[in-house]
Amino acid sequence: MTAYFNLQFENGLLHFINQVKLPGCVEYVQTDSFDRIAEAIERLEIRGAPAIGIAAAYGIALSQKNGISGERFAAAFGRLARTRPTAVNLFWALQRMRNFYNDHSAGITFELLLAEAVAIHTEDIHHCEAMGINGLPIFTKVSNVITHCNTGKLAVGGEGTAFNVIRTGWLNKMVAHVYADETRPLLQGARLTAFELSMNNIPYSLISDSTAGFLMKQGKVDLAITGADRIAGNGDSANKIGTYGLAALCKFHNIPFYIAAPSSTIDRSIASGDEIPIEIRSEDELLCLNSQRIAPENARAYTPAFDVVPAGLISGIITEEKLHLPPYNFV
Amino acid sequence: MTAYFNLQFENGLLHFINQVKLPGCVEYVQTDSFDRIAEAIERLEIRGAPAIGIAAAYGIALSQKNGISGERFAAAFGRLARTRPTAVNLFWALQRMRNFYNDHSAGITFELLLAEAVAIHTEDIHHCEAMGINGLPIFTKVSNVITHCNTGKLAVGGEGTAFNVIRTGWLNKMVAHVYADETRPLLQGARLTAFELSMNNIPYSLISDSTAGFLMKQGKVDLAITGADRIAGNGDSANKIGTYGLAALCKFHNIPFYIAAPSSTIDRSIASGDEIPIEIRSEDELLCLNSQRIAPENARAYTPAFDVVPAGLISGIITEEKLHLPPYNFV
Repeated sequence: MTAYFNLQFENGLLHFINQVKLPGCVEYVQTDSFDRIAEAIERLEIRGAPAIGIAAAYGIALSQKNGISGERFAAAFGRLARTRPTAVNLFWALQRMRNFYNDHSAGITFELLLAEAVAIHTEDIHHCEAMGINGLPIFTKVSNVITHCNTGKLAVGGEGTAFNVIRTGWLNKMVAHVYADETRPLLQGARLTAFELSMNNIPYSLISDSTAGFLMKQGKVDLAITGADRIAGNGDSANKIGTYGLAALCKFHNIPFYIAAPSSTIDRSIASGDEIPIEIRSEDELLCLNSQRIAPENARAYTPAFDVVPAGLISGIITEEKLHLPPYNFV
Repeated sequence: MTAYFNLQFENGLLHFINQVKLPGCVEYVQTDSFDRIAEAIERLEIRGAPAIGIAAAYGIALSQKNGISGERFAAAFGRLARTRPTAVNLFWALQRMRNFYNDHSAGITFELLLAEAVAIHTEDIHHCEAMGINGLPIFTKVSNVITHCNTGKLAVGGEGTAFNVIRTGWLNKMVAHVYADETRPLLQGARLTAFELSMNNIPYSLISDSTAGFLMKQGKVDLAITGADRIAGNGDSANKIGTYGLAALCKFHNIPFYIAAPSSTIDRSIASGDEIPIEIRSEDELLCLNSQRIAPENARAYTPAFDVVPAGLISGIITEEKLHLPPYNFV
């Protein structure tokens, strides 16, 4: 077991772990190119809503490394904004960098922009810590927890969102066992969450996504917690495809379902989840495995990357500020 | 598009399609060895509850090909009975062959045993036809249908159980679109059901198992139908892992959920689903893909092959006899 990091800025370069190669290969990439960062986000080498925002902020700063240029700033902004549509942290971080740039007008420098990106990164680390602590009250007994997708260090700047709530619960002896959905089609649960649970020595079982209901029926799940990619004003939360089904199964079995996300995930400009754009990914993500075709040649697939959990299914939303209880009204 | 078959007895040999290699490679195996048939069932080269029963019946007959031997009969019976524990059709077919053998005492011959295996196979073909027709009333309008795992020609002796209800609905212009769960971990949906839907020119989309809930929420699913591996006296039905979650999501969304299975799937010796043994498969089925490890080296997985849908979630059970409506009381 060795330590690992997700994002780190050092010697003028953003260093990031290439998540596509995990867990088989722990490989770090170094770059000072916003275009390479955008590419990494598109290819899911960097993923997780908060991590995408942090990486994009570094990308904006790096676009000004060789001298301030409004044109290059706009190009970097546009390129990064076009990478992925659903997670709002990306647009939040880009907008914060743009506001910072505009506010400093003639006085802006690469160093100042970099300091702002570092601030976004550092704040996220503190937010993760705060979410871990704010989430502790959800463990009303030593609990078996289920989670979906990856929300650990690999998804953020700090120790995680939902993952850090679980981790903090475990450190406080309130978590007995974690069931990790493998999270088809891209297997973030099998590849990344299992890796992070192992690294933290938290006892867990990997399950196929469709096993969740059977576990609940058997009384083996006390609560569910996931991250979110965008939260509407009314609390409706978009997250990895399968999260809605998990939340509905929780409701059906009277099991609490929680979301943990930094408040930068809240999109106060939209009233409900109906306004959240859902990214549809390549059909090949379902039709092929390890670049090998598994479905018949002429098969078609429906591959939304996200779904939306209505606020009514969410027992609480944990942010760095507090544990929000329903009804939600983020304004 | 070429025709394909699942099981065929010809020139003293059982010919079967090797389902593990589908859809990439359409390969048939010929054997007159009950041990090879048992191996095929264990490896899922032959799978699907009714198909397993038919293949086992041929295996029993073949064990007597070179002369009647009670000892070899018992060996074949034991070997075949140990292959897979959940589907009851296996035990039903073995018992029918044993009764037939015992009833003929001294007069028993290989030809007679083979004729009984052929009878089991032929009856299954007719039962599939009858299920298709008995299932037609579930389509009260032109419907979008969701299904889980594989229940087509590859699972049976005829055209399928749930699959043939869908196919007959499609031929009668009552099915608009099929959503096929890929069915992790072994991807029977992606590999086999997609193959059979393509062969029948039925319009479909392959989905990850966790997409089902999101489709239901969007109103894109009118009804669900699956097969079963064992049905208890009260109607509780064991089927591929994920079927319980699908049925629970149907209930949550007020969508009818049906089971189709020949009456040989009904185990009248057990009162409820609590008595159905659930096969736990190798953890590697989840931890590896195409023999390549995807999860961390020390990862553990929980891999039940089946779950149990309580009768209360089942809108109807279609057999070759009729569409049974709740409450179920199979005695």
